[in-house]
Amino acid sequence: MQANSSPDTAHIHIDLGERSYPIVIGSGLLGSSLTYQDIPKAAAALVVSNTTVAPLYAAQLTEALRHRYGKVLLVTLPDGEVHKDWPTLQLIFDALLENGCDRKTVLFALGGGVVGDMTGFAAASYMRGVPFVQVPTTLLAQVDSSVGGKTAINHPLGKNMIGAFYQPLQVVCDLDALATLPSRELSAGLAEIIKYGPIADMEFFDWIEANLEDLLAREPAAMAHAIRRSCEIKAWVVSQDERESGLRAILNFGHTFGHAIESGLGYGEWLHGEGVGCGMVMAAHLSERLGLVDKLFVERLTRLALRAGLPVRAPVLSASDNAGRYLELMRIDKKSEAGEIRFVVIDGPGKAVVRSAPDALVRGVIDLCCA
Amino acid sequence: MQANSSPDTAHIHIDLGERSYPIVIGSGLLGSSLTYQDIPKAAAALVVSNTTVAPLYAAQLTEALRHRYGKVLLVTLPDGEVHKDWPTLQLIFDALLENGCDRKTVLFALGGGVVGDMTGFAAASYMRGVPFVQVPTTLLAQVDSSVGGKTAINHPLGKNMIGAFYQPLQVVCDLDALATLPSRELSAGLAEIIKYGPIADMEFFDWIEANLEDLLAREPAAMAHAIRRSCEIKAWVVSQDERESGLRAILNFGHTFGHAIESGLGYGEWLHGEGVGCGMVMAAHLSERLGLVDKLFVERLTRLALRAGLPVRAPVLSASDNAGRYLELMRIDKKSEAGEIRFVVIDGPGKAVVRSAPDALVRGVIDLCCA
Repeated sequence: MQANSSPDTAHIHIDLGERSYPIVIGSGLLGSSLTYQDIPKAAAALVVSNTTVAPLYAAQLTEALRHRYGKVLLVTLPDGEVHKDWPTLQLIFDALLENGCDRKTVLFALGGGVVGDMTGFAAASYMRGVPFVQVPTTLLAQVDSSVGGKTAINHPLGKNMIGAFYQPLQVVCDLDALATLPSRELSAGLAEIIKYGPIADMEFFDWIEANLEDLLAREPAAMAHAIRRSCEIKAWVVSQDERESGLRAILNFGHTFGHAIESGLGYGEWLHGEGVGCGMVMAAHLSERLGLVDKLFVERLTRLALRAGLPVRAPVLSASDNAGRYLELMRIDKKSEAGEIRFVVIDGPGKAVVRSAPDALVRGVIDLCCA
Repeated sequence: MQANSSPDTAHIHIDLGERSYPIVIGSGLLGSSLTYQDIPKAAAALVVSNTTVAPLYAAQLTEALRHRYGKVLLVTLPDGEVHKDWPTLQLIFDALLENGCDRKTVLFALGGGVVGDMTGFAAASYMRGVPFVQVPTTLLAQVDSSVGGKTAINHPLGKNMIGAFYQPLQVVCDLDALATLPSRELSAGLAEIIKYGPIADMEFFDWIEANLEDLLAREPAAMAHAIRRSCEIKAWVVSQDERESGLRAILNFGHTFGHAIESGLGYGEWLHGEGVGCGMVMAAHLSERLGLVDKLFVERLTRLALRAGLPVRAPVLSASDNAGRYLELMRIDKKSEAGEIRFVVIDGPGKAVVRSAPDALVRGVIDLCCA
């Protein structure tokens, strides 16, 4: 269909009516001008990246865009979750306004989830909305933030508290970019891939178990399949429930505990995917205590998380009342309603449901996992 | 239809598909719990107001909401366009998070256009979107910001540069609130009402000319008609073009020059409606020089603006190159494309079009109006 399709390039169509867009997965995409041929031309494009990724890939991307845009600008943000805040977001608005960028300007997010979330929110808000393209360079961003249109920045009192649902024009997942990814970040990305097994597809979970060594070795065919299947499942869920009024919440398996860990330790201490990895193990224990899965399933998930290089022991967040601190942090989660924490639990392997749980049961899980 | 409809209460339906909402116009609405009976119940409501309006009306509103919400919170922002910025917006997010407000929390904007724009953007962004209700207390906010879903804050380099299109659940225009409005703000509101004549409805313009004394005396029946007709015209335009890709731009008649004045003098020096009033006169002169209207129309509009208490002489923004400064400021307007200023001009009374104009012609208008 598209001229840039090589036999090894996969296309996934995210079906959201007039906000539909394609995800392209393959090698050699990022620096090829053909990749962007369906993006509208404009007077200016702005590439947003960070101090780690820009030196590696910004030149390739800006070169590929140069013939479609009168000027191609670059903003390099400081790297890290700790900078996912308003002052850093303001750097994007400053660059847009200092360069007289109009509302046809296209933003390109080149980096991991933080760059994607911030660029997406900047695009949603600049002049009340300009188009943007995601070019995720981490595994986590390729499987997670590339589908769903969630954009946000953090508030000192909570993660992703200020943001918008805003869809990109296109997502470009270049497998070559994974070559430079630190192994800790590779593991963090695998956490979100593993997640799709328990919540939706245990055959995929079997496949991950069987192919984990290839994934850890960044073998392109295995990686392409894992990214593609993750995006497909996420796309299916999101197309049912774009604004998270119901089903979509299952994608947050592991995230309620995980966010508490990230927030309790201070953002940036653990990677998001590490929090999710450990959080999934905690949520599996909770599922077991609620009588929804058996002990074998919990052990199987824990073993895979360990093999993937993820932490499975939860950190102590308070010396005096550790479980109380976890509960306090989880009550300000966005899924909470009237102070009641909503947990994503596994209701038999391959199916997730959202429900509340007695504090005593949750405390037991926290005590067990922090021991 | 609704139990709170008194014979004098008007309802306008803003038709935007699933984002449709009603505007209610009448007396005694703000403090009546019946007014809000169709708004969803939730654990919490947050009233956002400012230091001028809160002492006058916040107690009435919070009392009316108390039986529908477990807690009714109040945030009082500093008053004025100069505070339409991120640090002030942050006060809303702080209050929401400090009080553990979830994504069902309803925000109520109680105040003028600045409070409405900021509360709307906070509602659009908090947890990626919570519901909100507009309770505009100035004439300008009742006729202007109550329809259209534009929300925003200012950036040091431009007005309303960061925001979202986000529709309220309901707009409540209480005519009683206009009693406490300073006369300068009354005139500013009349500017936006007068605007609808030249761009859409010269019969309405005739009516305003004939009833201006009643409007200046805040006579409720006249005021209700003026607000209703303005909202109807705006609603018709917005329903054709919610995201301002075409027709909607005509609502910005007077705003391109007006924004340059506001921005050039520093926000808050002139009221927004004052900038629009003077900007309409400038845009009328430009229309005449483009051969689209005759001199009599320009004089008629100028005379009505003067009678309404609006400034019709433009301020000098630069001693060295005044027209150049105006042009520079207008080039960063959101309607500009690739540096070309797009003016809303009158193409015969009652019809507006958007077009560019030669710099020399624009300079002539600026020189004339600043003389």
